[in-house]
Amino acid sequence: MTDIAADGLMPFHAMEILKRAKAMEASGRNVCHLELGEPASPPAPRVLEAVREALPLAQGYTNAKGLDELRAGLVGYYQDQHGVAVDAEAIICTTGSSAGFILAFHTAFRPGARIAITRPGYPAYVNTLLGLGFEIAEIPLSVGNGWRLTGADIAAAHAREPFAGLLFASPANPTGAALDRAGLTDIVATCERLGIVLISDEIYHGLDYRAPSISALELTDNAIIINSFSKYYCMTGWRIGWMVLPAKMLRRAEILQQNLFISAPTLSQIAASVALGERDYAEARKAEYATNRLLLDAGLRELGFDVGAAADGAFYAYVGISRFSNDSMAFCMRMLEQAGVAMTPGIDFDRVDGQGYVRLSYAGKSETVQLALERMGGLLR
Amino acid sequence: MTDIAADGLMPFHAMEILKRAKAMEASGRNVCHLELGEPASPPAPRVLEAVREALPLAQGYTNAKGLDELRAGLVGYYQDQHGVAVDAEAIICTTGSSAGFILAFHTAFRPGARIAITRPGYPAYVNTLLGLGFEIAEIPLSVGNGWRLTGADIAAAHAREPFAGLLFASPANPTGAALDRAGLTDIVATCERLGIVLISDEIYHGLDYRAPSISALELTDNAIIINSFSKYYCMTGWRIGWMVLPAKMLRRAEILQQNLFISAPTLSQIAASVALGERDYAEARKAEYATNRLLLDAGLRELGFDVGAAADGAFYAYVGISRFSNDSMAFCMRMLEQAGVAMTPGIDFDRVDGQGYVRLSYAGKSETVQLALERMGGLLR
Repeated sequence: MTDIAADGLMPFHAMEILKRAKAMEASGRNVCHLELGEPASPPAPRVLEAVREALPLAQGYTNAKGLDELRAGLVGYYQDQHGVAVDAEAIICTTGSSAGFILAFHTAFRPGARIAITRPGYPAYVNTLLGLGFEIAEIPLSVGNGWRLTGADIAAAHAREPFAGLLFASPANPTGAALDRAGLTDIVATCERLGIVLISDEIYHGLDYRAPSISALELTDNAIIINSFSKYYCMTGWRIGWMVLPAKMLRRAEILQQNLFISAPTLSQIAASVALGERDYAEARKAEYATNRLLLDAGLRELGFDVGAAADGAFYAYVGISRFSNDSMAFCMRMLEQAGVAMTPGIDFDRVDGQGYVRLSYAGKSETVQLALERMGGLLR
Repeated sequence: MTDIAADGLMPFHAMEILKRAKAMEASGRNVCHLELGEPASPPAPRVLEAVREALPLAQGYTNAKGLDELRAGLVGYYQDQHGVAVDAEAIICTTGSSAGFILAFHTAFRPGARIAITRPGYPAYVNTLLGLGFEIAEIPLSVGNGWRLTGADIAAAHAREPFAGLLFASPANPTGAALDRAGLTDIVATCERLGIVLISDEIYHGLDYRAPSISALELTDNAIIINSFSKYYCMTGWRIGWMVLPAKMLRRAEILQQNLFISAPTLSQIAASVALGERDYAEARKAEYATNRLLLDAGLRELGFDVGAAADGAFYAYVGISRFSNDSMAFCMRMLEQAGVAMTPGIDFDRVDGQGYVRLSYAGKSETVQLALERMGGLLR
């Protein structure tokens, strides 16, 4: 057996926070949960109704790529939202974006290959890559540039230590940073010039507060696109997402999907097919996050957190705690124990510079955000 | 990108059969589906009822290891069915056995390690291992020994080419071969003696026709156990299974589960919790397979197929076609086109000796098996 530490795998500190929060709740304390990256709302009512109707019938595997109606719906989604014509055969429905990553890595690379990711970034990127036997290169982002990745960042990192692929998200977790068309074009062009396979994680698409989300598909046919119904459509526990692949990778990806996963959960595929048509419901949820975003931003700034411009997208505030602490885990534990507010330490997202940051999620109710600010105020003022 | 052939990945020929069968059906032909390894029946009525009730509430991720009530139910399952006390903390609920394999391989080994499997065997074993960057060693089984793996087979293969792990199933796919207590004890002892990590795929447990299924957990604490609700509980499309791990592997497996999969689908976990209590329903399904098993066995023998003793378990007949053909794919295509009976060529399970065999599934209705026999009889007699 391989030791955990031997290949750099790290447990999430957020799990320790969650465990402690549950213990506090079990003993009667109330906790504001700002540590979870999942919407508080259920999927749209019509999604649940469709599942209820399908229940007696939908039990078997689907074909490996997924239900025809779901892939047809996704073709419509790219046409409507991005003005891009995608072939239904280029789409694979996956068991969340999680399975999409596993498929993407093994379709485009072989274990041992080096894949670049950003720092800070989604912690599962690092752990999945290392756990599957890939190497990583971390590209540091700067708060001064709004945590946005640039082509120059990529080229500089590649010159230091070459890599075969780049995985990045826009909007990003934990920073919410999103690229505009010029920024994404710069990244796509840099990857093409350097021969880097681009994996574009678009899981927070739809949750851009400044401008419509831009898919890498609008700019290139050579990127692997990963997306999910978890965030915008409020379907985390359903484990359903999708990917769009360049033509030359399709056959290998389909065979890997057949063997590694067989097919995505059937009921979740049915639910997702209906969710695509329920954008009004999703936009209403987004309006709630937008309210929370400004509320949390102003509140945190007033309390003395280091807050830049409000995040471009997603539903997270990634803010500095230099005025309070240089130990993000200790600060989070103190906020939890003394104020009853759960948040995630920056070291989960950035093992080098994360001690100075925490992430707060505003995917919950506005009342929760308001209460959390008041509680923290009582302690920090 | 890696070429499909470059690392030995093979598409399933069964998919070509399925595609042709669907095309025939679209043009109005009737096809008897004996190629699918999934039950024709839905899960128990109470399972669907529980899902219906949970629908408005169960949307978020669960903890990585799975719902407490599901793991408690599995502790009860091992106590009741196997007389073994399992710690709930040693259980991880997985997205089908498929995710269990990925977790098991990456928990116990690193890419590049060699894992042994049987030939014939479940084709996803080979493709998953090769796709994830592991090496394989194939241990040939003999029809003369009822396709049962022995400690001597393992030792002989290990002497030819050492391997770090052994993955095998009892009852097995495609042969239905199952080990008795002495046989399983022999395998466990051989693996312990040679330092081989044993992964016991128990997905067909409950579907033994000769004697109760024996879990490797009854004999050792050092094996990784993989199981699923797909077969016995008729829940293929729900993508829900579980694994039991040795204590020393638990921490790494949990971290990998968090990162690679987050958690198994929530609704499927709820469904599975209820399914565990619905054994009467599952036993009624098993009684149908038992009827089909004898019907198909006698019918195939009478038609001139090479049929040994009826399979010990699962719901497959793996039979020789030497009287008709030495090309299993051509034979399957002929049966499909001319008799309207779909089955799977042996080459999907055994790339060396599979040309002489086909696999027929009897997880469907007895009427389907009866009709398939009549149709084949009209052609082959």
